[in-house]
Amino acid sequence: MFDQEELGMRTIWWEDDEQGGAVCLLDQTLLPAQVQYLKLHHEQDVAEAIRSLRVRGAPALGVAASFGLLLAFVRYVREHGDTTSLLDAQHYLRSVAQLLRATRPTAVNIAWAVERVLKRVDDEQAHTSSIKALLQLVRNEALIIAQEDRDACLRMGELGAELIADGDTLLTHCNAGALAATGIGTALAPIYVAHHAGKKLHIFVDETRPVLQGARLTAWELQRAGVPLTLITDNMAGYFMRQGQIKAVFVGADRISANGDVANKIGTYSVAVLASVHNIPFYVVAPTSTVDLSLISGEYIPVEQRKATEVTSIRGTEIAPLNTHVANPAFDITPHQYVTAIITEKGIVRAPYTTTLKELAR
Amino acid sequence: MFDQEELGMRTIWWEDDEQGGAVCLLDQTLLPAQVQYLKLHHEQDVAEAIRSLRVRGAPALGVAASFGLLLAFVRYVREHGDTTSLLDAQHYLRSVAQLLRATRPTAVNIAWAVERVLKRVDDEQAHTSSIKALLQLVRNEALIIAQEDRDACLRMGELGAELIADGDTLLTHCNAGALAATGIGTALAPIYVAHHAGKKLHIFVDETRPVLQGARLTAWELQRAGVPLTLITDNMAGYFMRQGQIKAVFVGADRISANGDVANKIGTYSVAVLASVHNIPFYVVAPTSTVDLSLISGEYIPVEQRKATEVTSIRGTEIAPLNTHVANPAFDITPHQYVTAIITEKGIVRAPYTTTLKELAR
Repeated sequence: MFDQEELGMRTIWWEDDEQGGAVCLLDQTLLPAQVQYLKLHHEQDVAEAIRSLRVRGAPALGVAASFGLLLAFVRYVREHGDTTSLLDAQHYLRSVAQLLRATRPTAVNIAWAVERVLKRVDDEQAHTSSIKALLQLVRNEALIIAQEDRDACLRMGELGAELIADGDTLLTHCNAGALAATGIGTALAPIYVAHHAGKKLHIFVDETRPVLQGARLTAWELQRAGVPLTLITDNMAGYFMRQGQIKAVFVGADRISANGDVANKIGTYSVAVLASVHNIPFYVVAPTSTVDLSLISGEYIPVEQRKATEVTSIRGTEIAPLNTHVANPAFDITPHQYVTAIITEKGIVRAPYTTTLKELAR
Repeated sequence: MFDQEELGMRTIWWEDDEQGGAVCLLDQTLLPAQVQYLKLHHEQDVAEAIRSLRVRGAPALGVAASFGLLLAFVRYVREHGDTTSLLDAQHYLRSVAQLLRATRPTAVNIAWAVERVLKRVDDEQAHTSSIKALLQLVRNEALIIAQEDRDACLRMGELGAELIADGDTLLTHCNAGALAATGIGTALAPIYVAHHAGKKLHIFVDETRPVLQGARLTAWELQRAGVPLTLITDNMAGYFMRQGQIKAVFVGADRISANGDVANKIGTYSVAVLASVHNIPFYVVAPTSTVDLSLISGEYIPVEQRKATEVTSIRGTEIAPLNTHVANPAFDITPHQYVTAIITEKGIVRAPYTTTLKELAR
C-alpha cells in the first residue's frame, strides 16, 4: 500500500510500551529545521501538542484526540483498575473528552473522534463487565480510527488523481498533506497518487501566514516526496492565476457544513474567490469525518481566534511595532458556491451539496 | 502646512554640508526596531539604498533619484569643475542617470525624475556657459521635485479625504504613506487628512509579504500618527471584506499605464479582485508623475523579480526547507476594470482612463 513510509515521514502513531502505551508524533513546530519526535504519556501533553500545533491538520487531530483518550484511559486503568466502577470510568473518559474537545474549536474531527470512541463505550457498556475489556474496546476504536484515516487518504488520493492531468500546475494552501493525517494526506493525496503514477506535476505552495504551514510543512513534504514545487507568498496566488499558470486548486478542510460551506485555514476563502474569477476549479479534499451535517451552513462553524504574537512575530523574530493591534482568525469559511467539488473517501460530490453530502453519509 | 513633521517622521531630504551636500534618509530596512538615519555622499550609496529598500515607495524613489543625480554632480564639479566641458558634464550626468534607472525597473518615478533633471539641463545648456550654473540648475530641479512631491501628497490627501466618511474602516496594502514620499504619502494621505479633520477611522493593514512593508512601515507610521489600526496577514483581507468590515481600499502605485492599469506591490491585484467581488471601492492614490502615458496598458510594465531569500527567510530567520524553489515578483498589475478611481494631485479621475488620464497630463 502506498503510504506515509513511501513519502519518508510518519506523523502520529500509537506505540505500546512498559507504561501501557504512548502517543508518538512528529513535532511540526520544529519543521523544517528539525525532525524531532515526541513520545507522550499524558493526555494533558496531547492537549498541549494540539493547542500549540505540534500536531495539526483535521484528520491527524481526530487521531490525536482518540489516542489522547486511549492514553488517559490506559493510565486510569493502571491506577484505578481494581477499585473503579464502569460508571466512574465512563465519567472519567467524558472529562478527558471535554479537555480534548476544548483544545481547538474549528476542526470537527476532534469532536467526531472522541464522540465515536465514547459512543462505542456507551453501546458496549451493558455487555461488558470488566474495566479491562472496556480499555480493550477504547484501544481498538482508536486504532481503527487511525487505520481508517490511512485508508481514506489513499482512497481520496485515487479518486482525486483522476482530476489531475499529466503536466498540470496546481496550487495548494496551508498543509493538507501527510503531515496533516496518518496517511498520505487529503489535498496532497491526489497529487501524490498522480505523481506516483508518473504524471508530471508542479505545485505552487502558498506559504500560509501566520504559522507558515505551506512554507514549513508542505514545501518540506513535497520536497521529500520528490514533487517539484514553487513556494510563493499568499498574496502571489492571484498573480500566477492571472498569468494562466494555475490549472486547479486543491485544499483540505477543517469542517464542512451540510450545505457544502468549507472551513479551512485562513486565506482559503480568498484563494477560492480568485480561482472563481479566473475560472480555475477549486477542489476540497476531506474525509467524511470532516463533514458536519448538524450545521446547516458555514456561518455556524466556530472560527478559532489565535494569539496576536503569531502575526507580530515569525519564528521568534518581531516584525511589527510594539503594541500593534492584531486580528488573527485561524480559519475562514468558503461558501459552497466557490467549491467545484468535494473529494471524500466515499466519492467525489458536487453541488447541490445539501443533497450529495447527505447521500454520502448513508 | 500639514506635513511629515506633524506625523513625527522624515523620510528623505537634501542637506548642505562642507562636502557640498548629502542625501539624508531614514533607513527603512531597520524599522520598526530602529530609527536610524543615513547621510550619503556618493551616488553609488544612493543606488544601493534604493536596491536594498532603505528608501522605497514610488514618490520617494523619484526624489532619491534626483538627489542621487545632484550628489554625483556636486562631486563631479568639485573634482573636475575647472577642467571639464559642458558636454563632458552632460555625459557624466547621463551615465549616473543610467546607474539610478537600473536600480529598480517597475517604479516609473525614478526614470521620470532623472529624465526631468536631464531635460532641464539639455534645455538650458545652450544658454549656460558655466559648469557651476549647470550645477545650480540641477540642484534647483532636484529640490523642486522634492517640494512638488510634498505639495502633491497634501493635495492628494485633501482630494481623497472627501471619499472618506466619519467612522469608516479602510484597508491598505504595502506602505504608501509618508515613508513612501517626502510629504504625507499617497494612499495614506487621505487617511491622514481625514484623521486630522477629526474623522474617526480604523485602518486594516495588510502585512505585505515578503518584505512586510505593511507590518513594519505602515503600522509604524499610523501608530506614530495616532491613527487606530489592525494589522492582518495578507490572506485575511478577504475574510474581513466578507464580514462587511471594510468600507474602501486605498493603495498607492508604482506605475500607471495610459489605460489605467496599475502596477503596485505584489498582492494588490488580489485585493482589487476581492474588493470588486464584495462591491468595495478600490482607490489608487498616486501623483501624476507615476502615470506613464507611453505605455498603452499594464502588460508592458516590467515587473521586478527579487531574490528568493526575501521569501525563504524573514528578517534573517529561515522559514522554508533548504533549496526550496521560490518565485518572487515584487509587483503585480491590477487591470483598470478593478480601479474605482485614481486620486492624483491634479484631481480624481475615473474610467474611461484612456481619456481622463490624458486630460490630466495637459
